[in-house]
Amino acid sequence: MNFADLLLGKIEEKQNPSCVGLDPVFEKIPQQIKEEARNKFGANFEGIAQSFLEFNRRIIDSVAEIAPAVKPQMAFYEKYGNFGVRTFEETVKYAHKKKLVVIEDAKRGDIGSTAEAYSSGHLGRVASWNGNEPGYDVDCITVNPYLGIDGIKPFIEDAKKYGKGIFVLVKTSNPSSGELQDLDYGNKKIYDVVAGLVNKWGEGTEGARNYRPVGAVVGATYPQEAAKLRKTMEKSIFLVPGYGAQGGTADDTVPCFNKDGCGAIVNSSRGIIFAYQDEKWKNRFTNEKFDDAAKAAALEMKEAMAKSLKKADIFPW
Amino acid sequence: MNFADLLLGKIEEKQNPSCVGLDPVFEKIPQQIKEEARNKFGANFEGIAQSFLEFNRRIIDSVAEIAPAVKPQMAFYEKYGNFGVRTFEETVKYAHKKKLVVIEDAKRGDIGSTAEAYSSGHLGRVASWNGNEPGYDVDCITVNPYLGIDGIKPFIEDAKKYGKGIFVLVKTSNPSSGELQDLDYGNKKIYDVVAGLVNKWGEGTEGARNYRPVGAVVGATYPQEAAKLRKTMEKSIFLVPGYGAQGGTADDTVPCFNKDGCGAIVNSSRGIIFAYQDEKWKNRFTNEKFDDAAKAAALEMKEAMAKSLKKADIFPW
Repeated sequence: MNFADLLLGKIEEKQNPSCVGLDPVFEKIPQQIKEEARNKFGANFEGIAQSFLEFNRRIIDSVAEIAPAVKPQMAFYEKYGNFGVRTFEETVKYAHKKKLVVIEDAKRGDIGSTAEAYSSGHLGRVASWNGNEPGYDVDCITVNPYLGIDGIKPFIEDAKKYGKGIFVLVKTSNPSSGELQDLDYGNKKIYDVVAGLVNKWGEGTEGARNYRPVGAVVGATYPQEAAKLRKTMEKSIFLVPGYGAQGGTADDTVPCFNKDGCGAIVNSSRGIIFAYQDEKWKNRFTNEKFDDAAKAAALEMKEAMAKSLKKADIFPW
Repeated sequence: MNFADLLLGKIEEKQNPSCVGLDPVFEKIPQQIKEEARNKFGANFEGIAQSFLEFNRRIIDSVAEIAPAVKPQMAFYEKYGNFGVRTFEETVKYAHKKKLVVIEDAKRGDIGSTAEAYSSGHLGRVASWNGNEPGYDVDCITVNPYLGIDGIKPFIEDAKKYGKGIFVLVKTSNPSSGELQDLDYGNKKIYDVVAGLVNKWGEGTEGARNYRPVGAVVGATYPQEAAKLRKTMEKSIFLVPGYGAQGGTADDTVPCFNKDGCGAIVNSSRGIIFAYQDEKWKNRFTNEKFDDAAKAAALEMKEAMAKSLKKADIFPW
């Protein structure tokens, strides 16, 4: 199945264009989860990584009915070495078991032969003893455009071949994103140029819903830029970070959607998974019920998105 | 110790400004190494990853007297999941045991809090059961500038704190590098702007040799651009990919050096580690002696670099 159809289908099924970022942080994992993992696996990286896995499983269980997708950020796993990466792998499997789309946030990008290695490992199949076999097998991955098409092409090829998707960084959500992305190029900005490239790179990859598996990362923190980019990349799905903890509101994300109310998926990480520590929720949920807090926060986000899309008269369901 | 002093000291010690890229590829690992690993660990990813580790150990043994540094490219490890990452970790340890500088080629880059996670894991220390402890503990890492200073700052801070280094992608060696990097910005190119940022970001980080731990990636395949960039980033060390298999010659790398004959380290990966398969070497070395072939290729590269630097009258030793 074309990845765009897969993702948009899931969004439709849940009537919710938002996803849950799985970014585990040792200091923020509830004490009880950590202690259990330490007792079972030791006070080492394995124990930490296993506490992340248990945490993720419970978050996934609590949001599986609400959200169409999860977005694990690879940095938070690979920082704990091979044990962390194993937790990433197990998290992908568990999310798939719960029928969630897995958006790997890894922002990879390299020269051609190396991009091929990344792509085969994350999206495609890797050479093995008898032919080849899948690696991480995520549904899609974020990629960095600084090296040009050489660094993107292998991912697009695997996306076509295996029904996977990519989201190319165009305009990121962070404060200094403009340092390079907002530089003037004639009467355009650099992010406009990248958007034009993304649009070109994705030509002919449309699925049944007329969207492409070649998407773009466009931060919720820059709504004016998003409105412009929405036109340049009409058939691309936008992955929209920056909601919640980073300052973006549901209204801010509206320009990332097309007039059909489709074409974007908005991510929140800390605001959902660590809701149990939030001033707003912590009186309602104990530390042990961190997953219920996450569920409440995920539901609230779903409702906020629906409200904003309705206000803009583009709520599709 | 300041990373720039560490690396330049090693280059001086070996009288060789070139490094060996450790990019293991399953199809190219000698049959004997693969069979041993399969017998011991199984026909699975663990067996593959262990064949890479044995291959790397023998390459490291054979080049340890010649080269100042090795450059493992993370993509080739992480494509085999947690087992691959464990091999990466073991390779770093083994290279350190052999007193080699380890340049991790990972091209990471993300928003602030995520860049911190990457940096703490690769260069710094990660939160653990009793405070914090080192992660991969490489000597330096390549990073991508597309997100601006937010994505770079955590790495620079860890570099200062732990005596580590970074190489920021400026002008990469691949054919399509110009698609974004060569766009005009006023009378400059985008890579000039990035070079200016790298120069600014590195201010005040100079070591005893007056070089900085904030370096740049500048491809051997673009010597004219390199000459210009050398002036903009006078105190930065250049990591120079693109030699050999990618088409760059020793003469092409000369503009990456300062007039003191310092300030650059040139990488070759396939041309050295898979020399045993090369038309040029394969009649002299059997498959079993792949490490001797790598040694011969590494020596040849050392000599080629010396010759080119002498011709330019900047050979420092």
